[in-house]
Amino acid sequence: METAADLSLAPFLAEATALLGPRGLTRDADLVTPWLTDWRGRFTGTALALASPASTAEVAALVRLCAAHGVPIVPQGGNSGMSGGATPDASGRAILLSTRRMNAIPKLDSAARQVTCEAGVVLQTLHEAAEAQGLRFPLTLGGKGSATVGGLISTNAGGTQVLRHGSMRALVLGLEAVLPDGTVWSSLTPLKKDNRGFDLKQLFIGSEGTLGIVTAATLKLVPEVADRVVIWAGVPTIHAARALLLHCENAAGDALEGFEVLPQSCLEAVLDHVPGTRAPLAEPHAWHALIEVVADAAGADSLRDRAEAMIAAAFEAGLISDAVLSASEAQAEAFWLIRESIAPAERAKGPAMQHDISVPVERMPDFLDAAVPAVETAFPGTHAVGFGHLGDGNIHFHCIAPAGAVRGEWEAGTGKAISRMVHDMVTRWHGSISAEHGIGQLKHDELERLGDPAALALQRAVKGALDPLGIMNPGKLVSLAPISAKP
Amino acid sequence: METAADLSLAPFLAEATALLGPRGLTRDADLVTPWLTDWRGRFTGTALALASPASTAEVAALVRLCAAHGVPIVPQGGNSGMSGGATPDASGRAILLSTRRMNAIPKLDSAARQVTCEAGVVLQTLHEAAEAQGLRFPLTLGGKGSATVGGLISTNAGGTQVLRHGSMRALVLGLEAVLPDGTVWSSLTPLKKDNRGFDLKQLFIGSEGTLGIVTAATLKLVPEVADRVVIWAGVPTIHAARALLLHCENAAGDALEGFEVLPQSCLEAVLDHVPGTRAPLAEPHAWHALIEVVADAAGADSLRDRAEAMIAAAFEAGLISDAVLSASEAQAEAFWLIRESIAPAERAKGPAMQHDISVPVERMPDFLDAAVPAVETAFPGTHAVGFGHLGDGNIHFHCIAPAGAVRGEWEAGTGKAISRMVHDMVTRWHGSISAEHGIGQLKHDELERLGDPAALALQRAVKGALDPLGIMNPGKLVSLAPISAKP
Repeated sequence: METAADLSLAPFLAEATALLGPRGLTRDADLVTPWLTDWRGRFTGTALALASPASTAEVAALVRLCAAHGVPIVPQGGNSGMSGGATPDASGRAILLSTRRMNAIPKLDSAARQVTCEAGVVLQTLHEAAEAQGLRFPLTLGGKGSATVGGLISTNAGGTQVLRHGSMRALVLGLEAVLPDGTVWSSLTPLKKDNRGFDLKQLFIGSEGTLGIVTAATLKLVPEVADRVVIWAGVPTIHAARALLLHCENAAGDALEGFEVLPQSCLEAVLDHVPGTRAPLAEPHAWHALIEVVADAAGADSLRDRAEAMIAAAFEAGLISDAVLSASEAQAEAFWLIRESIAPAERAKGPAMQHDISVPVERMPDFLDAAVPAVETAFPGTHAVGFGHLGDGNIHFHCIAPAGAVRGEWEAGTGKAISRMVHDMVTRWHGSISAEHGIGQLKHDELERLGDPAALALQRAVKGALDPLGIMNPGKLVSLAPISAKP
Repeated sequence: METAADLSLAPFLAEATALLGPRGLTRDADLVTPWLTDWRGRFTGTALALASPASTAEVAALVRLCAAHGVPIVPQGGNSGMSGGATPDASGRAILLSTRRMNAIPKLDSAARQVTCEAGVVLQTLHEAAEAQGLRFPLTLGGKGSATVGGLISTNAGGTQVLRHGSMRALVLGLEAVLPDGTVWSSLTPLKKDNRGFDLKQLFIGSEGTLGIVTAATLKLVPEVADRVVIWAGVPTIHAARALLLHCENAAGDALEGFEVLPQSCLEAVLDHVPGTRAPLAEPHAWHALIEVVADAAGADSLRDRAEAMIAAAFEAGLISDAVLSASEAQAEAFWLIRESIAPAERAKGPAMQHDISVPVERMPDFLDAAVPAVETAFPGTHAVGFGHLGDGNIHFHCIAPAGAVRGEWEAGTGKAISRMVHDMVTRWHGSISAEHGIGQLKHDELERLGDPAALALQRAVKGALDPLGIMNPGKLVSLAPISAKP
């Protein structure tokens, strides 16, 4: 059955079909529906059609057409985002624009350590392309088998290697994007230095498709890891973990690639949930730190000695209670498996509100000391845990429902109140309510509620300047200024 | 004598004086005039008054007042910029806003390796504050005795350590700015991860005061250098220098802090011009590379061995003709003195057009091979040399006038034609007509002539959104869109 929206948009659909062909534009529910719900199953929308352009030129032509007809566009890569940023709303007015057909790697310059990718290249594919040249793309995360370069850039993705290599923003050397009027802005040829004004590529990194569609990027590669040592250390307090982090930063310098923490309860949840896992240390400890140090070919010979010296000095300084160094790559992977299994293990235990938050690195121990009892007191029976990227000041702060809570009901009621409390606390501590997962639709209203008014006004001003029609990923991240405030 | 402009602006001046007091606002020619000409003496303007606010609150109040009265503002730090970006135009309508009184360093957290500075802190002062804590601010340049933090940020300053540590943009962790309507936007507390939308601080880095006034920043510090080795190598061609760069990047990794090149003629100019300098190598070489490798305390013991091995391998691979490693800090400084003396030595020889250009790093040797004969053929008697930051793809390309050329006349005629030719070539090579010195008023028209139209339109859109009145540093970098294109 055709709806009214369909009829008025018939000319648009005819033009879009002529432009993209049957493979590039479909309204077949079997093909479209799988992409209308985010992978976590938290958001579902509808779409006028699924567009899968094969080139930047096709994206540009489609965007021009959308601008002419006022059709909103929701860009989507691997649909593995955490905040519903790639899921359309329920209106059915928007085109879902998938970049997945744009998956070429036209250039990999191993001497310059640079790779140029189309937006739809999957992270795992990029890893393999770099490895084939003895290089490495130093960003990884759980969704690497589906996450695309365009999505990683649009969400400024993080992961477990940010401590040394930075978030996606630090790895983008050049960028190409289609602007909301269909103009192609291209700056793929990287210049290490270029002071011709604003660094325009920054606008498109982390802006969740609200200012344009990333169509290609040139990314930084680094030398492959020749050897790594992963250390599992037991520490008595989160403050001790922070002291250990500083110790390792000083001792290992750039060799320090990861520093993750988890409380004993997270370890136990994993041991319960994941068959074959075992505790790295004989005794329980209030907190555990997972520390990775790496070396490229030049430093591989001395890596283990340096790691051992670093840990020996930490023992002597009373910073750790116990520790073990990985004796093999298999053991290193086993340590990481524990870390990566926390989120699914916690999910399996029952409903929980998850908060991807950051505060200044040096304040995180105090924040956890304050936030855990505050939540557990305000919401009796709730169990609060923080784990994750202590080295980045970024903790995944999970508030687990009391036994017997009904998932949907608890999340919509008590859970929502908990989240408000956590976000309020984070804001008071000068932190971020979204450290790495973005805003999307999940935190859109919380950002409006808690964001600095000057920052929100700036975001709206930039949004209004670049996308005056408001067709780029509406309802995500940033809203246009209220009509009354427009010129 | 009061001018018409003075009379109509009398209420503004009265309010500004009441706001800032006699120390904060002056029209005394003896106090104002020294700041109306850039340090190179290439640009001179006039100003309604010199404002020297003492705090962010005073800056904000002054900007609100300027916005209300339509008075343009030219922000100025140390007045040591290279492109006239801090010099007002000749209209006399603008306020010159000096940040020099805002020179406090309210916080230096040595554990977190972060320092918060007001905008007027001089780079040399910042260096000393970091050194006092066993740390280092890893950006330096010739004007360090006058350049301010605010100016360095507004121009995204570079220097000789960009290869390892990046330009100013890479060192800014937090920022505070006064927006063109007088709003204070503050994000001084650094979060290593924060994905609440656009990275707004990027807007103010490198935008030359056209979007707002940087009033404070939190900057990254790094461990102090425990030891360094500076290597002077003779190489037969610029291509060999590039091969040597790749070799050193692979061999030294993050220890490689600098890689500069100069042709024999630049060395000779320095030896002629600077008393006490001597050639590091016995024989002349077509090109010379200056290579610095450094270590912090953890790596200092093995630094010299690693440097020697790196150079020995370069010899074996036939990459270098001769080389010497600094045997002392005095010798290291002597090598750097040669590099830093090139610009004044060339200036002393006679008129020259200087071009601060970049192309992709791997293409610079080919560019020089093409550009030098092209310029020398098109303009007989001209001598073209390139020297500088090969590791960044950033060369200072100087075109020296024939003997007997009259400075002003030659610069305005032949010199200008040479610059157009150089800029045309750089643009064809996908390079930048301003690698590190910015656009200011010096290259404003060239950017309009050669810039990518999509990039220029984006810059204008952002400028128009943030500064619709066009009061922030008018005539520099980016112009507002033509009136006809405004809504």
